[in-house]
Amino acid sequence: MIYKFNVRDVRFPLAAGAGSDAVHQNPVYSYAVVQLRDDNGFTGTGLAFTLGEGTNLVCKAAEFYAEKLLKCDIEELMSHFGETFNHLSNEQQFRWLGPHKGVVHLALAAVTNACYDLWARKRGVPLWKLLIDLPPEQLVNTLDLSYLEDELTREHAIQLLNENKTSQHTRMSIIKAGYPGYDTSVGWFNYSDDDIKVNCRKAIDNGFSALKLKVGSPEPERDIRRAHLVRDIAGNDVKVMLDANQQWTLPQALFIGKKLLSMNPYWIEEPTHPDDIFAHQLLAKNLAPCKIALGEHVSNRILFKNYLQLETAGFIQVDALRVGGVSEFISISLLCRKYGIPVVPHVGDMGQLHQHLVLFNHISLNHEALFLEHIPHLKSHFEQPVVVQDGVYKTPMEAGSSCNFKEML
Amino acid sequence: MIYKFNVRDVRFPLAAGAGSDAVHQNPVYSYAVVQLRDDNGFTGTGLAFTLGEGTNLVCKAAEFYAEKLLKCDIEELMSHFGETFNHLSNEQQFRWLGPHKGVVHLALAAVTNACYDLWARKRGVPLWKLLIDLPPEQLVNTLDLSYLEDELTREHAIQLLNENKTSQHTRMSIIKAGYPGYDTSVGWFNYSDDDIKVNCRKAIDNGFSALKLKVGSPEPERDIRRAHLVRDIAGNDVKVMLDANQQWTLPQALFIGKKLLSMNPYWIEEPTHPDDIFAHQLLAKNLAPCKIALGEHVSNRILFKNYLQLETAGFIQVDALRVGGVSEFISISLLCRKYGIPVVPHVGDMGQLHQHLVLFNHISLNHEALFLEHIPHLKSHFEQPVVVQDGVYKTPMEAGSSCNFKEML
Repeated sequence: MIYKFNVRDVRFPLAAGAGSDAVHQNPVYSYAVVQLRDDNGFTGTGLAFTLGEGTNLVCKAAEFYAEKLLKCDIEELMSHFGETFNHLSNEQQFRWLGPHKGVVHLALAAVTNACYDLWARKRGVPLWKLLIDLPPEQLVNTLDLSYLEDELTREHAIQLLNENKTSQHTRMSIIKAGYPGYDTSVGWFNYSDDDIKVNCRKAIDNGFSALKLKVGSPEPERDIRRAHLVRDIAGNDVKVMLDANQQWTLPQALFIGKKLLSMNPYWIEEPTHPDDIFAHQLLAKNLAPCKIALGEHVSNRILFKNYLQLETAGFIQVDALRVGGVSEFISISLLCRKYGIPVVPHVGDMGQLHQHLVLFNHISLNHEALFLEHIPHLKSHFEQPVVVQDGVYKTPMEAGSSCNFKEML
Repeated sequence: MIYKFNVRDVRFPLAAGAGSDAVHQNPVYSYAVVQLRDDNGFTGTGLAFTLGEGTNLVCKAAEFYAEKLLKCDIEELMSHFGETFNHLSNEQQFRWLGPHKGVVHLALAAVTNACYDLWARKRGVPLWKLLIDLPPEQLVNTLDLSYLEDELTREHAIQLLNENKTSQHTRMSIIKAGYPGYDTSVGWFNYSDDDIKVNCRKAIDNGFSALKLKVGSPEPERDIRRAHLVRDIAGNDVKVMLDANQQWTLPQALFIGKKLLSMNPYWIEEPTHPDDIFAHQLLAKNLAPCKIALGEHVSNRILFKNYLQLETAGFIQVDALRVGGVSEFISISLLCRKYGIPVVPHVGDMGQLHQHLVLFNHISLNHEALFLEHIPHLKSHFEQPVVVQDGVYKTPMEAGSSCNFKEML
C-alpha cells in the first residue's frame, strides 16, 4: 500500500554552453521528482523534466495527483491504471489548467512514472522486462486510449501487441547487444566551431554512428557552415541530425531548411513552433526526402494522433517526461506502430527511463531499434547512470526504471 | 511607473447546478487576479479564469511575469508591448512549461490584461475606446505576431485595420444601441428539465434571442429530449446553441451530432477534445450546414491559425483569459477577420472584459456584432458589473476594462 509520498524540486546547473540551443541559452536541467513509498519497503521514483524556473509549479501540481494515490496497492492500481490515468487527467477542476498539457500534465508524468517504477521494483525486475512480459490485455489496461477511438481502440491495441508477440523472441538479442545511441552533445548551440570539431572526433572514436548539431542561428550562414563542418568530420557513413528547437518561422524553416539539405541531414528537428501542425505538414512536403523529427514539446496522445494523421513527421520524439508518463508514451508508440513511424524519444530523463522504453518498443512492438539520444551531463547524479559503451546503451538489469538520484537516497 | 504588484487567488462557489457541464460537474468560478500599481495612483487589474483547484499555481506563475514589469512606465511599455509579450512568453526556462499554453499562459493572460487595464485607466477611457482610437501602427505594436508569418505579417495587420478604419464611423451606433447578448445559463448540465423550461421562458421574456444548452449526457436521448424541449419553447426565431464541452469521442460526436441536427442548432460547441484539430475538420464537413464553435480551451494564436487554416470552425470562441490576454485576443481576431470567421468569445470573465473587446472587433475590424455570451452568476462580486438589458450589453463608460472585484478594493 502506498502510505506516503514526497515531491522534490531538484536542479542541476550545467557547464558553460552545455545544453544550449537556439531558444534555451542557459538551461538548468531540473526535475520534479515524485517518490511513492510502499509499506512493503519499496519506493517508486518518477521524474518530470524542466529547464529551471517553474519546477516548483510542477512539484506543487504533482502533490495534487500523488495525494490521490495514497492507500492504493500498486498491483491493484496497475491492473487498471488506464482508468486511474483517465480520472486523474480529467479531474474536473484541475483539468481547466490544461487540459492534458503544460504544468499539470508534466506533473502527471512524474506521478505516473513513479507508479511504473514502484511496480517494477516490487516485482524485482527492470521496467523493460516487466513491460515485455505483460500479457497484452494487462498492458493495455494501463493505458488511457480515450479520444483515440478513430485510430486505436482497445481491441486494436491488443491486436497490435499480439501480432508482434509471436516474433518477440527473435528480437531478444538486443538485450545482449545493447540499444544503439546517438550523441546529442557534440554541437550544443553555444559551442565554438573548434569545440564541435573536437567533440565530433571524440564521438566517432567512442563508437557513435549518429550525431546531432543545434541550428537556428540568427545568421543562416553560421548554421550552414557548422552543418558542413560536422559532415566533413563525420563523413558520409555517419548520420548527422540538425535541431532548430522551434526557432524558425515557417518561411525561415522553408528557406534555411532547403539550404541545409546540401549536407544531407538525416533529419531536421523541431523546425518551427510545436503547435503548428499545418506548418509541419508543409515542411514535410517541401523538405522531402529529408524527414522532419518532432515531439519533445508535444504534450499528449491526441496531438501526436493529429501529427500522424497529417503526415508531418518521419520520426516521433515523444518524451515520457513530457506526455503523461510511461502510460501515454506506450499509447503513442502504439499509434506510431500503426502508422509505421519510428519512435526516437527525446530524453529529458537523460535516457535513464527511455532505455527501458525503447527496448519494449523494439521487442514487443517491433519498432526498429534505430538509436536513442545520449546526453551525459548528469551521469554523476544518478544512482545507476546509463552505461553507453562503443556507442551502445548497455541493457539495465537492476529492478525499476533507473530514475533514482544519488542526492535523494 | 509600476512600483508594486499583488496577485490574489479568488474563488466563488456557485449555487447548485450553476456552471455545470458534461465535463465539469462542480466548478468553482475562480480567478488569478493581478494588480499592477502605478506611482501615479492608478491600479491595473487583470484576470485569468480557472475552475477552482490550481488557481494558486496560476497566481505563482503570474508573480514570475509581473515581477519583470516593475519599474516600467505603462505608456512606454504599451508603445511596444508586442515585444514585451514575446520576451515574457519565451522566457527561456519558464517556456519549457508550455510553451504558450497551460498554467504559464493563463498567468501571462492575467498580467497582460492588467497592463491594458492600467493603460486605459491612466488615459481615463474605457478600454474599448482606447483600442478603437489607437492608430493602427500603435495598436499592432501591442501584438506579438511571431509564428503567424505565413498568414498575418505586421504590414498585413496594419492594412486590415486601415481598410476598416474608413467605415469605422458607420459602426459607432453600436455604442448607443449596445451589443447583443446570448444567455448561457438557461440550460446548465445539472439543471432539471423543469428548470430549463422556466429559464428559457424567462430568458426570452428578458429579451434574449439566443440561448445555450449543455449537452454531452451519457445517454444521447437526454440530450435530444432537452434540445427539442428548448427549441419548442424558443420557437424558430430564437437561436439555440448546443455545447458538449469536449465530452464526446469523435465517433460519438458524429453519431449524436447528426441526430441533434433535427432541432436546428445554431452551432454545436466543443464537440470533442480541443487538441484534436483533424477531428474538428471531419466534424465540420459531416455536420454541415450546422457549424462548429470552438476556442474556449484553445491556448494560443498558433493553434487558432491551424484551426482556421483547416476550416474546422464556423465560430471562434477565443477567451482573453485563456490565450495570452487582450494582446493575443486581438491577434486572433485579426486572423479571424482575414478568414471571415466570426469571433464570439467564451466569457471566463463573465463578459466584463469581453464587452470591451467585441466592441473593438465590431467597430475597428468590422466583425459582425453577432452576440456575446452572458453569465450572471458573479454580478454581485464585480465593482462595475456588466449591465444587460433587453438582451443587450449596455456599453461600459467607466475608465479601464471593468475587471475590479469589490472584494479587492
